[in-house]
Amino acid sequence: MKKDRFLIVGLGLIGGSYAQGLKRAGYEVGAISRAAETVRYALEQGFVDSARTDVDADYVGGFDIVVFALYPHVMLDWIDRYQAFFKPGTLLTDVTGVKGTVVRQVQAKLRPGVEFVGAHPMAGRECSGIRAADYRIFSGANYIVTPTAANTPAAIARCEEIGRILGFKTISTLSPEAHDEMIGFLSQLTHVIAVALMTCKDTTHLSAYTGDSFRDLTRIARINDEMWSELFLLNREQLLSQIDLFTNQMTAIRQALSDGDTEALRALMRLSTERRGGFDKTREP
Amino acid sequence: MKKDRFLIVGLGLIGGSYAQGLKRAGYEVGAISRAAETVRYALEQGFVDSARTDVDADYVGGFDIVVFALYPHVMLDWIDRYQAFFKPGTLLTDVTGVKGTVVRQVQAKLRPGVEFVGAHPMAGRECSGIRAADYRIFSGANYIVTPTAANTPAAIARCEEIGRILGFKTISTLSPEAHDEMIGFLSQLTHVIAVALMTCKDTTHLSAYTGDSFRDLTRIARINDEMWSELFLLNREQLLSQIDLFTNQMTAIRQALSDGDTEALRALMRLSTERRGGFDKTREP
Repeated sequence: MKKDRFLIVGLGLIGGSYAQGLKRAGYEVGAISRAAETVRYALEQGFVDSARTDVDADYVGGFDIVVFALYPHVMLDWIDRYQAFFKPGTLLTDVTGVKGTVVRQVQAKLRPGVEFVGAHPMAGRECSGIRAADYRIFSGANYIVTPTAANTPAAIARCEEIGRILGFKTISTLSPEAHDEMIGFLSQLTHVIAVALMTCKDTTHLSAYTGDSFRDLTRIARINDEMWSELFLLNREQLLSQIDLFTNQMTAIRQALSDGDTEALRALMRLSTERRGGFDKTREP
Repeated sequence: MKKDRFLIVGLGLIGGSYAQGLKRAGYEVGAISRAAETVRYALEQGFVDSARTDVDADYVGGFDIVVFALYPHVMLDWIDRYQAFFKPGTLLTDVTGVKGTVVRQVQAKLRPGVEFVGAHPMAGRECSGIRAADYRIFSGANYIVTPTAANTPAAIARCEEIGRILGFKTISTLSPEAHDEMIGFLSQLTHVIAVALMTCKDTTHLSAYTGDSFRDLTRIARINDEMWSELFLLNREQLLSQIDLFTNQMTAIRQALSDGDTEALRALMRLSTERRGGFDKTREP
């Protein structure tokens, strides 16, 4: 059976890493990126077989799977303008960090004969752009597929296969809503915490005293503001919920401390230790 | 000039690592630990030249520097009972994570001719006990000396020298109060955050979806409840302050999110990114 030909739209960190990973796995990979310099770099590095800055109908129509690695509003706009170029049977997917709004908006405007299955590769680096692209960021990471009732089993399977090709450790399926609740807590809340910690006081004079705990909690305080503000707002209600859950717990700990309630503090710490054990990398399936 | 002979009281993770580091640097090292098994292990591993479970007057009087690696209330009790055994001119120091209350309480009860200079080696591991001891945890780490008006320049210098012998990257001096404010923020608050994150919801089903951000923020959620509850309570007022500073900032971010204020969110994120740059390990002095 002939291998699927992949088109990557958007050659940033994730798009570039997808291209590199798929090419290394033996797939034909094309790409569209607005910057000529990015196109030149991708070709030079051998991330892609072909790449262009313009959106050509015949070019787009020559691919079987299209991966959008664009900011959500850019992807929606692109699909609006150019979806007529896809050949029938094309699978569309994405890498967006929030799912509910995005997946439903895309599916609502999609023409028949073309299917969109949302996916979220939970990997990244604090730097961005194609020069940071590295297919190795996917190994050991989690890949989430977020099908809806509008998706067919065959398309879902093709989407899951992308995760396997790229070498993710775990391929999971969640509804877009369950995904957004999960990501609101595990990823977005953690970024809010890091930013709050980094900006609640002027820390410039403190680096001589830093221990690893502060560095660990603020690694993600180095944050792509354009991307993350958009993701937060796309998941606003869910993220507000998760923030409240967390700050309520901070208040509970504060209360125990204020009351001098050693037993309550120790009980929370023991629960914390027990639960954290379940997250050790070596123990994951 | 003859080298100082060190007595380590308490052979846990830190005491054991101090012993190992000092011995490797060519110093004579003795130790007192309540558990016979620990004494046996330390001797067998070559961490110490001598070690005992009992507190013998002649033994204690044979050392020049005594390092207390005990929980604060245990150290205070020990000094109460046995300080008559120190020979005149002995330097006492500690490894405690909070300074104000502890240093002043020790100095208030200390007999003349013996001096206590507080210190805090800002290093550790999530495991405890002598079997986790590793002198390498000090390299690249920060060592803080916390002298008071009761300390002499000579004793302060001897205390700083311990940090140099053990290979810390930065040796700093802070008043006990300034230390406690700093530690309340950089270390205690971060542990409160990790515990809150780990206990605000049942996370057991979420490990399949975890990205690195959640793991990073909760590495320290695996927490020694006996030690940390005591340290929190010894620094209660300062820690309550730092918790409030942080949760107020969480509220500010929540408000910007709730208002859909993209510009405010992005401005905070950019400030966060800029400040975090100052903490990169490679850029530290």
